[in-house]
Amino acid sequence: MIEVEVKAHVNDFSNVLEKLSEIGAEKVMIEYQKDTYFNNPGYRDFEKSDEALRIRNTTLNNDESHIILTYKGPKLDDVSKTRKEIEVSVEDSKNAGLILENLGFKPAADVEKERTTYSINEFIISLDNVHKVGKFVEIEKGMADGEDFKEALDKIFKIYKKLGIEGGFERRSYLELMGVYKG
Amino acid sequence: MIEVEVKAHVNDFSNVLEKLSEIGAEKVMIEYQKDTYFNNPGYRDFEKSDEALRIRNTTLNNDESHIILTYKGPKLDDVSKTRKEIEVSVEDSKNAGLILENLGFKPAADVEKERTTYSINEFIISLDNVHKVGKFVEIEKGMADGEDFKEALDKIFKIYKKLGIEGGFERRSYLELMGVYKG
Repeated sequence: MIEVEVKAHVNDFSNVLEKLSEIGAEKVMIEYQKDTYFNNPGYRDFEKSDEALRIRNTTLNNDESHIILTYKGPKLDDVSKTRKEIEVSVEDSKNAGLILENLGFKPAADVEKERTTYSINEFIISLDNVHKVGKFVEIEKGMADGEDFKEALDKIFKIYKKLGIEGGFERRSYLELMGVYKG
Repeated sequence: MIEVEVKAHVNDFSNVLEKLSEIGAEKVMIEYQKDTYFNNPGYRDFEKSDEALRIRNTTLNNDESHIILTYKGPKLDDVSKTRKEIEVSVEDSKNAGLILENLGFKPAADVEKERTTYSINEFIISLDNVHKVGKFVEIEKGMADGEDFKEALDKIFKIYKKLGIEGGFERRSYLELMGVYKG
């Protein structure tokens, strides 16, 4: 899958919440996400290769939790965070992490956030409150490999405009913003 | 976890089935297992390092199936197949495999077998009919990391004796026996 994705830094969510309601976006869920990123600089340094390997532990609406192992490929353009993304649900974050560690991939950093998700048409809008980093609005759409993502990208920037966001776009990952990756 | 494990080649299962009944072993289940082994010779050649990375797709009693990602460390002694083993259930073998491939681990070989499992006390006895390889009886026990496995190993060889098996012990993996690993 290709994840077409843009994110923007905001100072607070109050304006955005008002506009989301005006444009008819629907609230989907509130999640607490704890991500552990792995790296293996001696084999392939993801900071340089622009890849990511992550175990995400998500608690949904303060209740059930699920764990996803994700690989992200290098970004595919110069303006967005669009990239190949492969996910698989795993039963247990501890053993998934131990397998990665035994293969030489060590935990590099944790990122924690509250994420409130809205949907409008085929787009997902996430309001991320990222611990130690700040507040961000992320808009994304999943597409099949090989599908042209330019049109989706145009639509994403139109939604940002409707939300009153015309600047603060950020291609750096939360990891980079935390100073873990200096890239 | 440490998996204390010994396996032996047999010509057929009829004698063993009789003895299993005599010693009161209980039949647990019949599984069809399709294993895909991954390797990454340019980074770490598992043939040389005596490790294994495997996705196992198991169909239980011809019905439900489940998928397990497993890492196995090098063997810990000279007589058995005892080694560190870390497992995690994954939702989907295709995406789990794609993540491994994107990390540079390529499918090296498939092993398919019918496995009929019996239990006696804390031991699991498997009758494996391995496609293109032959018939094997495997006896194993899971132990905590650091626990002494010598006593378990003695008990395993006593069970083999009760089953009428005193030779044909095989430390090579099914992969090696298939000639995929020449080690």
